[in-house]
Amino acid sequence: MPAKSPVIVDLRFHPEQVREGLKHAFPGREVINRADPQHADRDLSGIDYAVLWKPLDDLFTRATDLKVLFSGGAGVDHVLTLPGLPNLPLVRFVDHTLTTRMSEWIVMQCLMHLRQHLAYDRQQHKKIWNALNQPEAAELTVGMMGMGVLGSDAARKLKVMGFNVLGWSRSGRPVEGIEMYSESGLDEFLSKTDILVGLLPLTADTANIFDAKLFAKLRKHGPLGGPVFINAGRGGSQVEADLAEALKTGVLKGASLDVFQIEPLPDTSPFWTLSNVILTPHSAADSDVSALFAYVEKQIDRFERGEPMENLVARDAGY
Amino acid sequence: MPAKSPVIVDLRFHPEQVREGLKHAFPGREVINRADPQHADRDLSGIDYAVLWKPLDDLFTRATDLKVLFSGGAGVDHVLTLPGLPNLPLVRFVDHTLTTRMSEWIVMQCLMHLRQHLAYDRQQHKKIWNALNQPEAAELTVGMMGMGVLGSDAARKLKVMGFNVLGWSRSGRPVEGIEMYSESGLDEFLSKTDILVGLLPLTADTANIFDAKLFAKLRKHGPLGGPVFINAGRGGSQVEADLAEALKTGVLKGASLDVFQIEPLPDTSPFWTLSNVILTPHSAADSDVSALFAYVEKQIDRFERGEPMENLVARDAGY
Repeated sequence: MPAKSPVIVDLRFHPEQVREGLKHAFPGREVINRADPQHADRDLSGIDYAVLWKPLDDLFTRATDLKVLFSGGAGVDHVLTLPGLPNLPLVRFVDHTLTTRMSEWIVMQCLMHLRQHLAYDRQQHKKIWNALNQPEAAELTVGMMGMGVLGSDAARKLKVMGFNVLGWSRSGRPVEGIEMYSESGLDEFLSKTDILVGLLPLTADTANIFDAKLFAKLRKHGPLGGPVFINAGRGGSQVEADLAEALKTGVLKGASLDVFQIEPLPDTSPFWTLSNVILTPHSAADSDVSALFAYVEKQIDRFERGEPMENLVARDAGY
Repeated sequence: MPAKSPVIVDLRFHPEQVREGLKHAFPGREVINRADPQHADRDLSGIDYAVLWKPLDDLFTRATDLKVLFSGGAGVDHVLTLPGLPNLPLVRFVDHTLTTRMSEWIVMQCLMHLRQHLAYDRQQHKKIWNALNQPEAAELTVGMMGMGVLGSDAARKLKVMGFNVLGWSRSGRPVEGIEMYSESGLDEFLSKTDILVGLLPLTADTANIFDAKLFAKLRKHGPLGGPVFINAGRGGSQVEADLAEALKTGVLKGASLDVFQIEPLPDTSPFWTLSNVILTPHSAADSDVSALFAYVEKQIDRFERGEPMENLVARDAGY
């Protein structure tokens, strides 16, 4: 039996966690962690696999014999736009912990807007004891744009918490227990939505989709006094000037943002200081790096046994 | 058929909501809203029913023919300690909306501590872009003290969100899908608990139960770096000097408090300003007043048809 192919790890995130996670990952294989200077001059030819997220510029010119690419995250827009990307199978990272973490964040944000956390926080700082008029979850409708594995799990959990939930995807493909809308039903979907959750991949179709025109179509006179926008998909889907304006003028009552056009978010961005915005640094579904490596090991096993790999990216759709 | 007995409404909360809610409540019956000055001198003898929450001092000396008392809330400690309380059937307010609202609040608070909301909020104010190391819900155990209708619903929803959940009640009565502990198992229950949720009624047994000794028994080295205390039961169950000390010294990592020994919470309380406390003004399960009146109507109907009323209070147990 020939020696197992090494794995190239080319990840521009959490360097300590990556180093720690690699201690027990890929048993029986050499691992070339490109964040480690000792591998700077390593010959990368003849290697089958690379796990990547914003890889070094020379990856594809030096690793010329790759057979499979693994994205270090659920999104692949950063991979698909890489210069010199070879035409190879590309596998997205989908795992249970990534899904449940994303649902934790989305359910928490929906509840914080429902239960008027920002207003109560202001009252606490001023020592004001005052119970606010409080709608319950059943009086609100959450509209989820993006109904893949992550969106479907979050939608199901929001229903358990009592929210009405509608789903939207380009195809309108049925999802059990959720009323679905497709491309042509977008306006009707928006007109019923009090809390809009964006969980869309970044593609040509979804770039800049969240703009002033879209925000103006959300349900206006719901029990929260105005619609809320939550984005945990990609920053490239939101027109940030429109979003800031909508938050300042009251077209949007509030927002929770985990993703931005430019990350890290520049100091000059209005979102840091808008009093109706809850901001997190692209950490909604920051997964355990160990889970990523275990997932890649499993897919390599499938590939080497001649079985189909899971969550292969359809290049033309972009996800 | 004799005329239907009037209903006395003697509630010291949300006066506008009560007035609004009474417009369509108790059809076919006179309603005497004691918050309304025009009823100040009304003869209250010969009236069967009173709905009360911190009633006026003269209620029981003037309404001498009452047959049933209805508490305006789920808790009845405020009723059971009233001077001159007659020995009559006392019905607690339990309704679907109260249960689901309480679960909204508890799940939100557990998620906010899990997802390090206070730390992210501080980072946002300082424009710091930094993803924190993040355990997932499955790595934490929520221990729920008080497993009645409210506690059981919250426990079930916390499990859906991925938390491990343990339940504790004096009897340890089984609750489907939840590992239960009884009085004698308290120490073991606490030693496994990362997030302790108090949902206890206030009785002789539960007064001051949350003290320094109890906080010291919680799981110390969990993934959050220390245990969290959440109280949505009664303020009288917590020793506030001990609680403040535990929050200052790090015995507790954080807290979410909706109830206090004295309400409204005095300006001098440390809980307003402790940076690891999330505070709400006894509004975790503030129910719709209309739902309360609909519930009382339903119980009166049952009583007048000779059927047993629901949620009758067992005086000796105190709930």
